[in-house]
Amino acid sequence: MRQLFEVASTCPETRARAGILHTAHGSLKTPVFMPVGTQATVKTLTPHDLKDINADMILANTYQLYLRPGLDIIQKLGGLHKFMAWNGPILTDSGGFQVLSLGHLRQINNDGALFRSHIDGSEHFLSPELAIEAQEILGADIIMVLDECPPYGERKAYIKKAMERSHLWAQRCRQRHNKENQHLFAIVHGGTFIELRKQSVEFLTSLDFPGYAIGGLSLGEPKDLTYSTLEATTHLLPDDKPRYLMGVGSPEDLVECVAHGVDMFDSALPTRLARNGALFTYNKRCNIRNSRFKDDERPVDSTCDCYTCRTFSAAYLHHLFKCEELLAYRLATIHNLRFIVRLMNEIRCTIIDGRFPQFREDFLSNYQPADAEVREEQKKKWLDARSNKHIAE
Amino acid sequence: MRQLFEVASTCPETRARAGILHTAHGSLKTPVFMPVGTQATVKTLTPHDLKDINADMILANTYQLYLRPGLDIIQKLGGLHKFMAWNGPILTDSGGFQVLSLGHLRQINNDGALFRSHIDGSEHFLSPELAIEAQEILGADIIMVLDECPPYGERKAYIKKAMERSHLWAQRCRQRHNKENQHLFAIVHGGTFIELRKQSVEFLTSLDFPGYAIGGLSLGEPKDLTYSTLEATTHLLPDDKPRYLMGVGSPEDLVECVAHGVDMFDSALPTRLARNGALFTYNKRCNIRNSRFKDDERPVDSTCDCYTCRTFSAAYLHHLFKCEELLAYRLATIHNLRFIVRLMNEIRCTIIDGRFPQFREDFLSNYQPADAEVREEQKKKWLDARSNKHIAE
Repeated sequence: MRQLFEVASTCPETRARAGILHTAHGSLKTPVFMPVGTQATVKTLTPHDLKDINADMILANTYQLYLRPGLDIIQKLGGLHKFMAWNGPILTDSGGFQVLSLGHLRQINNDGALFRSHIDGSEHFLSPELAIEAQEILGADIIMVLDECPPYGERKAYIKKAMERSHLWAQRCRQRHNKENQHLFAIVHGGTFIELRKQSVEFLTSLDFPGYAIGGLSLGEPKDLTYSTLEATTHLLPDDKPRYLMGVGSPEDLVECVAHGVDMFDSALPTRLARNGALFTYNKRCNIRNSRFKDDERPVDSTCDCYTCRTFSAAYLHHLFKCEELLAYRLATIHNLRFIVRLMNEIRCTIIDGRFPQFREDFLSNYQPADAEVREEQKKKWLDARSNKHIAE
Repeated sequence: MRQLFEVASTCPETRARAGILHTAHGSLKTPVFMPVGTQATVKTLTPHDLKDINADMILANTYQLYLRPGLDIIQKLGGLHKFMAWNGPILTDSGGFQVLSLGHLRQINNDGALFRSHIDGSEHFLSPELAIEAQEILGADIIMVLDECPPYGERKAYIKKAMERSHLWAQRCRQRHNKENQHLFAIVHGGTFIELRKQSVEFLTSLDFPGYAIGGLSLGEPKDLTYSTLEATTHLLPDDKPRYLMGVGSPEDLVECVAHGVDMFDSALPTRLARNGALFTYNKRCNIRNSRFKDDERPVDSTCDCYTCRTFSAAYLHHLFKCEELLAYRLATIHNLRFIVRLMNEIRCTIIDGRFPQFREDFLSNYQPADAEVREEQKKKWLDARSNKHIAE
């Protein structure tokens, strides 16, 4: 079988690299951002829209699909690709993260996790072997080991224990996994403790996985700590394997984490922000509900080539959001995802051309991240909005 | 200026006819069904989707757009076509119907209607002249006179009074109207009283409008009464002018009302049903939430050529509806509208080929309308769902 990953070009100053990922459903260029299609749909979009945006690879959630529609249904319908009519590459997570964050965890031990469904309260047990079997049925191109992801701020002893359990599970997943056209990635843990990260990398690389994810970051810790932990971790990972940072997706984080050597990203942030009316532009994200857009004839971002910006004024989007029209969420999602896809393309081009350090500097000095206070407020709004299923994710 | 309407073919047995409507934004074939784009968007769809469905002409609501975003905004943005990026024909209603059904009517007299906005309670006054001015600003290809549309079941004296006021308003609209590229249609009233309908047709045709709508039907009266009133009314209308039946859109009604000589239709029914998971098929409408679809690999309608049926299984749609995923509403809307567009095409072809009477018979004997009880229940559900803005309209 063809090798999963090749590095095409590396930045001489930073650790950024441009690569190619070869999967059973096509090859794609890295660094890559994967839109999140939790329930076998990237919210509001068809596969046609995703192709139009040039999204290369998407992520789906094993936990959600296991509970609804159920693996038997997806199996009968010919697997996840066919079920959702997406013939490009897919990555599925193992379900571990959602069991702990969404499910009502009853018990966790070395055997696995006993939890109640967040949908109907039914009881389920997830073991490393079952996580692999579930992902085999779904049929994604890249699948993940089962892991226990503790929240940020836990004591070191707890983080260590969870890490060791994740190691045990990773080993069992590795043993259970045998489908040649699916690549199983390990997940490095250890919270923000560099010593633990080192242990985790050592253990997991000794098992020789085709790719390594970095879990347990972007969970509310300060950004500096994310970056420093990430840097220390990627330094230890093999250069010839893809590195996947889970749950990261803000423009500034993408640029910065590529500089630390990350090849793959996923996050619900760009799509969730879109449904909340927060749209990316080259220098900041803006709130389309703001009254300054009510008669703005220009597109949201005049430098953008997405369907939304090519077709509609900011005033029209403002109107749709004010009216809570369903089309609003879709047009905003198209724009935000296209923004991220273009950003990743630009990052890649500048790595290849040797301009990445300058690009990184320029981007980060121009782009004004939502400040901590705004982010806190948005997080609160999001939590409040969870009762409104259309917006939350 | 080119004549608005030509009759291309008539059915020798029924009163059905195939025609062509020439507007400033293109010509289209009749009989035509116009999807409803209340707030400058056919809910969930882009103009691109509408073209893909082959929708020829859409309807937008003056009342809604007057209140939000406001006529000044749409004027500044270059008119409704440009605002919503739809370059095909548009018809706007006058706002009269919504003032009475949605707005909080304060007072109505021969001058016009004083009402409160259903959005913010602000007070507004709508006169025949203002209705025309508003529609001139919107810039639709066909515009409507202001009318007073009383509910079904009112006393004859009340219906007569409203009709006479509508006549007065129609005359004033006619006087005020002067844009050559906009065609102003009259609206025939008189409830289910044939004598009043006759008076209304006589009065309005004496003013010589380019087209005639039939208002005040499909307001909850029994279907037989709809059909008999319609038949009596269309018999009186001139043959060389288009006839537009307002608010009708179920498959069986479309076939039957074409047989009575109607050329144009609009209704929110197909799109609203879609958002509720009720999908048209050749022999009935089905509820995609029904568990019999949960593992159905076939498309919702295997005879359908829409994007939804070409791309997805009924099981996938069932899953999206169960999860309340936004994509569900869009895929269902695409299907229901495409079903209606294909039905209208087929009606037209059979009129031209001389097969319409047979087609009508076959269709009506195969197609099982939602029975009165189901319809009542759906109406109740719809009323309940009005708090959920995404579904109601």
